[in-house]
Amino acid sequence: MRAAYHEELESIGDSLVDMANLVTSAMGRATSALLDADLQLAESVIAGGDTVDDLQRDMENRAVAVLARQQPVARDLRLVVTSLRMSADLERCGVLAQHVAKVARRRFPDQAVPRDLRRTILEMGQLAQRLMAQAAEVIVTRDVESALQLEKDDDRMDELHRMIFHHLLDEKWHHGVETAVDVTLVGRYYERFADHAVSVAKRVVYLVTGEHADGLPADGCA
Amino acid sequence: MRAAYHEELESIGDSLVDMANLVTSAMGRATSALLDADLQLAESVIAGGDTVDDLQRDMENRAVAVLARQQPVARDLRLVVTSLRMSADLERCGVLAQHVAKVARRRFPDQAVPRDLRRTILEMGQLAQRLMAQAAEVIVTRDVESALQLEKDDDRMDELHRMIFHHLLDEKWHHGVETAVDVTLVGRYYERFADHAVSVAKRVVYLVTGEHADGLPADGCA
Repeated sequence: MRAAYHEELESIGDSLVDMANLVTSAMGRATSALLDADLQLAESVIAGGDTVDDLQRDMENRAVAVLARQQPVARDLRLVVTSLRMSADLERCGVLAQHVAKVARRRFPDQAVPRDLRRTILEMGQLAQRLMAQAAEVIVTRDVESALQLEKDDDRMDELHRMIFHHLLDEKWHHGVETAVDVTLVGRYYERFADHAVSVAKRVVYLVTGEHADGLPADGCA
Repeated sequence: MRAAYHEELESIGDSLVDMANLVTSAMGRATSALLDADLQLAESVIAGGDTVDDLQRDMENRAVAVLARQQPVARDLRLVVTSLRMSADLERCGVLAQHVAKVARRRFPDQAVPRDLRRTILEMGQLAQRLMAQAAEVIVTRDVESALQLEKDDDRMDELHRMIFHHLLDEKWHHGVETAVDVTLVGRYYERFADHAVSVAKRVVYLVTGEHADGLPADGCA
């Protein structure tokens, strides 16, 4: 009975890692679709959102079942409640990857990202992936130090986000309003994705230490 | 003991309603600050975010305490878990109201919203408030019909959001890129706020019927 219980708790953690891996991959493919104007890849990311939703729904049901049947207390209770929160973060990240892919689809066969911003968007996409891969690792290792490091690494995302605005508001901007709108939205999607990765890591800190790592991410935009 | 337990459950519901009322008011004031270029009002919305955070943190702690001490099952368990979810929606809405206020602050003493979009933004702001007020009512009444109605009413928000994009991408747009960026972000903030109101209402449907009202809101943007 207790063995099954611990297996259930572990399987909840496994599902979180699976979700984190899925959205990391989705964001990577969405970034490629965006920068290569690859419609097929964009469609695959958009269609893949259901898998994340299914995983989340399934994990939620198992978490509620554990609460009902096993009535965990103390640390185990905190684990289940925190997992529910993390799964909401991860589910949202799946939606954000889809949003990036939808921008690529909407502008196809044109490029949504002008040449002089490709490098910045590529870095945002790669950083988003790295942050989420790091968050997945933190879920497994429960390493508080690397969870806190994640927040520092996210500073670079804020910097890139500011660079985009700087670029948009430069008088030399000559890519028109439609591209400005797309770049504004895409920048926000990456920034929010990274915020959720930070949020997942902070929840692990809470889980391990019982203390909130100064609340939710700052959400620096606008 | 049981009386105290039911009081605790009720007080969790009360906190959710308080949070919903707070963010409804915050979004109303943020919209006024935006449309009137009122810096003082914008600052008050930005400063007020802490109150929402405090309410959420407090509610979360009480919810976890109820889970630990009372180990609710069945419907009561569903109530506590769903409340945790709803409080995350509402906390996010507080942040979105702050974001709208920050746009007003950044552009002060200028107007962030051009004249030909004032009416649309005003309607978005008012609709956002109405949807959240409706969601607060649904938390109290648990009326499934009006929860489902909320989703239909949100269609108008999507329509207004599309109108903004239509306007932005019109060749006659002559307000420049900075205003395009601000309007894009503001439109997204209202749309997300409304999505969260719909999400709160859907969670009430789940609470009452035990069935998910077709998952989370569609999040129509981009």
